[in-house]
Amino acid sequence: MNILIQNGTIITMHNRKTIRQGAIAIENKTITEVGKSRDLKRKYRRGYKKVDAKGKVIIPGLINTHQHAAMSLLRGYADDLPLEEWLEKWIWRIEKHMTPHDIYVGALLTAVESIMGGTTTVNTMYHYTAEENEAKAFADASLRGVIGHVCFSWRKKEDKKALENLAKNWHNKADGLIRVSVDPHSPYTVDSEYMRELKEIREELTQKYGSEKAPVIWHVHVAETSDEPEKIQKAFKTKLKTGVMGYLDSLRVLDRHVIAAHCVALTDRDIAIMKNRKVKASHNPISNLKLASGISPVPKMLKEGVTVSLGTDSPCSNNTADMFEIMKITAILHKGVSKNPTLTPAQQVLEMATIEGAKALSWENEIGSIEVGKKADLAIIDFKKPHLYPLYNETSHLVYAAKSADVDTVVINGKIVMENRQLTAINIGKVMGMAAKAKDRLLERLTRNIK
Amino acid sequence: MNILIQNGTIITMHNRKTIRQGAIAIENKTITEVGKSRDLKRKYRRGYKKVDAKGKVIIPGLINTHQHAAMSLLRGYADDLPLEEWLEKWIWRIEKHMTPHDIYVGALLTAVESIMGGTTTVNTMYHYTAEENEAKAFADASLRGVIGHVCFSWRKKEDKKALENLAKNWHNKADGLIRVSVDPHSPYTVDSEYMRELKEIREELTQKYGSEKAPVIWHVHVAETSDEPEKIQKAFKTKLKTGVMGYLDSLRVLDRHVIAAHCVALTDRDIAIMKNRKVKASHNPISNLKLASGISPVPKMLKEGVTVSLGTDSPCSNNTADMFEIMKITAILHKGVSKNPTLTPAQQVLEMATIEGAKALSWENEIGSIEVGKKADLAIIDFKKPHLYPLYNETSHLVYAAKSADVDTVVINGKIVMENRQLTAINIGKVMGMAAKAKDRLLERLTRNIK
Repeated sequence: MNILIQNGTIITMHNRKTIRQGAIAIENKTITEVGKSRDLKRKYRRGYKKVDAKGKVIIPGLINTHQHAAMSLLRGYADDLPLEEWLEKWIWRIEKHMTPHDIYVGALLTAVESIMGGTTTVNTMYHYTAEENEAKAFADASLRGVIGHVCFSWRKKEDKKALENLAKNWHNKADGLIRVSVDPHSPYTVDSEYMRELKEIREELTQKYGSEKAPVIWHVHVAETSDEPEKIQKAFKTKLKTGVMGYLDSLRVLDRHVIAAHCVALTDRDIAIMKNRKVKASHNPISNLKLASGISPVPKMLKEGVTVSLGTDSPCSNNTADMFEIMKITAILHKGVSKNPTLTPAQQVLEMATIEGAKALSWENEIGSIEVGKKADLAIIDFKKPHLYPLYNETSHLVYAAKSADVDTVVINGKIVMENRQLTAINIGKVMGMAAKAKDRLLERLTRNIK
Repeated sequence: MNILIQNGTIITMHNRKTIRQGAIAIENKTITEVGKSRDLKRKYRRGYKKVDAKGKVIIPGLINTHQHAAMSLLRGYADDLPLEEWLEKWIWRIEKHMTPHDIYVGALLTAVESIMGGTTTVNTMYHYTAEENEAKAFADASLRGVIGHVCFSWRKKEDKKALENLAKNWHNKADGLIRVSVDPHSPYTVDSEYMRELKEIREELTQKYGSEKAPVIWHVHVAETSDEPEKIQKAFKTKLKTGVMGYLDSLRVLDRHVIAAHCVALTDRDIAIMKNRKVKASHNPISNLKLASGISPVPKMLKEGVTVSLGTDSPCSNNTADMFEIMKITAILHKGVSKNPTLTPAQQVLEMATIEGAKALSWENEIGSIEVGKKADLAIIDFKKPHLYPLYNETSHLVYAAKSADVDTVVINGKIVMENRQLTAINIGKVMGMAAKAKDRLLERLTRNIK
């Protein structure tokens, strides 16, 4: 369907250009023209579905660069606990009982929540299963995503099969909505040999199923907590002479297709390596605070020119998929911690949530800004809300005052997936019902210890 | 009107009691019975408006203990600037051009936003003007509030007149919705003699217009930044041998009717004094981070048994009046900063936003929990939202996942002020229009330098 979005304020995130009384023409999946409403209205009279954005602000869809989408099924299952107890006695214990169907339902729930909050692309790391999986959930919800399979030293054979199937079945599939990634869990759960092998697998899968312009990427947790060097030393009985990023670099696995989640406990040299190797960061402030991991040196990374994007992390450690929350916390946290109120200004944070997110996923040729030729991934925000009055500056409001519930209409890949807060492809009530049922059965399997 | 709220989950915040399939009977302004729906439905068949809370959670209305409500008119006017420049060149400069009507409109906008986010009581500090003011705005919006007049050494005569008029016209007025406070701006803008005088004025006004059960309280900024001792020394050419709270204690102005906003730069002795004098704290994490003031030692205050409540601060330094945001940030911030994920658990944070807030305003005999005999100030939260599925624990969801937009229905003083997200007493469109117009005129006066 062709669409003309008109009468709105467009925050393009391309050369910091804002267009008031603006319009966007969309043909099939692609943005074909961006300009003033009065001009485009004249040109696109017939054959275009009109979307009125009067009193609304149009932004590129938000890009969430670190998720474990399936885990929404465990939202609020356990909080406020010591980290080891939380992971071992609660999360890992119940996760063992999750079925492929649970993974599908959890990811579907996260997809719905993401879309309703203006997020159009989600980078998710979980266990790939052939039957039902996160890729199918995202495709069913019409959400763009990079779907990863998480790899551990203890299941190499299984992983390799999963990666091959994931790439074969899903890379660049579902009308180009879905791409895939190779996801070493972390430097302390994946040994150095396997780490290097996974780097090769990423390159092979890109050649086989992708292209230079649509690569399979590499998604890994790095330096989430300050004891990670010790964990690596303990796991592999090696001596670490450098920071964690330095360790990974010594394995020659870092390049521009690596997205490192968390990046909390980085040395200055780690940051220099990220810059040199063009490694991208996913900053997850809510999860890092809630799990008491610490605070990522985001202003330092930004100063050094590292690409820093934003992620919610899993719905267990957040407990939402809300990128508006992430933007606000990112903007205020680093000011408060560094005692400098000029750091991470609104404009920069909105870039981290859009165009920098696209770069972090090696997808900036197609998404992250409102530009002719890019895919039409947009969120239209209703500014006729008391908390968005009066209006001095749209970007300030988007970062400091707007909420996910202000998102009115969402377009992904040229398709209207939500209009006036109504999802077009998915029945929300049905998804919530599926989640409630899946949770009940999961608790039952846990109680009866059935896997 | 008599009301029966039925079929909901009631989080009473009284002895940590939760009632599933619960009901609340309200007669006139007061909660008359709280129990199981099946029992109350039988008892209150006729003469009660029924509110169905199926799939919803009922909590005491949230209590915002630090605001400058009128300042919503400046929301997003200036952000991301060095503190001095922000205050002097932007905020104070434009504030000089604000009229009594602007104060009324700003406070009305904040009142509307507060109610829509489940906040039923707001403690606000601003300039009292006889004609139009924050008290009138709150009364018009049916929002409960403590309205203060902010005092400075440079305008003692004016202040005293304003305080007398404020108390006379508004204390315990508007059906008991409105109380007032005496608000020394800060220890560095109010000299020691005036500080003591303001303490006496609070006591006089309580005797004259209030009672032991409905006191005029004392609302003051304390230790917002670490350079406050220097500011005091510079302003009054004295030597400070103690922390800021110690300084105030040496003036003999601290008692249980003092609410100290911010409390960022406190010494251990300051905290011990707060405990001994029963001084209450209002924690304002978003403002403290955004303005780079620092991080309040909340876990330490809580450990010492100080009453810690929560506030948004002004819509210039936040930029919303959203207590759900404040709860989530409070819950995660202190974990992250202290590297201890068990601090400020959800239950404790919800207490800070409700019953502890009531105590902080010396109003706990009437508000802060769902108990027979208390005023009916309630927020009903719709849990049928994707981000609130599945459900393991209501309190976890309220603090970590729920959003202000999930608030469905709000009761204040026994009156339904919002039902299914529709305000009953106020036309939102009209308030937003007033705010937009007031802002345009304010900018015009600023440009033409008209006061």
